[in-house]
Amino acid sequence: MPAAYDNNNIFAKILRGELPCYKVYEDEHVFAFLDIMPRSPGHTLVIPKAPARNILDIKPDDYAHVARASHKLAAAAMKAFEADGITVQQFNEPAGGQVVFHLHMHVMPRKDGVALLPPASHKEDGKVLEASAAKLIAALK
Amino acid sequence: MPAAYDNNNIFAKILRGELPCYKVYEDEHVFAFLDIMPRSPGHTLVIPKAPARNILDIKPDDYAHVARASHKLAAAAMKAFEADGITVQQFNEPAGGQVVFHLHMHVMPRKDGVALLPPASHKEDGKVLEASAAKLIAALK
Repeated sequence: MPAAYDNNNIFAKILRGELPCYKVYEDEHVFAFLDIMPRSPGHTLVIPKAPARNILDIKPDDYAHVARASHKLAAAAMKAFEADGITVQQFNEPAGGQVVFHLHMHVMPRKDGVALLPPASHKEDGKVLEASAAKLIAALK
Repeated sequence: MPAAYDNNNIFAKILRGELPCYKVYEDEHVFAFLDIMPRSPGHTLVIPKAPARNILDIKPDDYAHVARASHKLAAAAMKAFEADGITVQQFNEPAGGQVVFHLHMHVMPRKDGVALLPPASHKEDGKVLEASAAKLIAALK
């Protein structure tokens, strides 16, 4: 049985505006911001506004909303970062690779021949993240 | 610019019934079957019935349908394989890790402390796949 949703996880705090983030997209159902330890330039996290630990407790409609926003962000990321491909990952429970327990879908722009950095291996510079967010927001328009 | 959809990719052939598969789920929009080179026991592929190379050309509704079915399969896989978590991955274009060019979402049941096998590293025995499919189908009911 998965643990209950913890209202004090860091993504819940970002959603409530209690922690800063590099926001790139928001609609009625979802919120998206840059991973500050990107595995590739432009690495974005798409999260539901509804409280959900992961795929095991999220409502199907909310999971579909996250997928729709990820689809939109993938297209924008291809333009914004002149990417050659996109890797989508979504981890559930520690066994599944999850570290922060508010559901999030990773959307990672990829370049031919460039491997993903290991998870959480490099904290990106704020100026770089700011520039990446601006590019992605422009490409979403 | 991604290449066009190739109607002769192996998943298109599976959809048309020209190649066999270990089918676990089907509805109006999607089809799901076991990966014959599973990275974890019960590793399932969810594909749209609509022809789509990947996230860059699929219609948003079809991507959402794939996500909804993956959500359903994740819950069933937890039961069927007594899993501790689920890893979801979806690769787009060679740079993004894609090998077969019909969109597919990987749904991989995970056990605590057990790493995923490397991609395409081990072709599973037919009897094992048959038993896994039966378990998953039972759990979906």
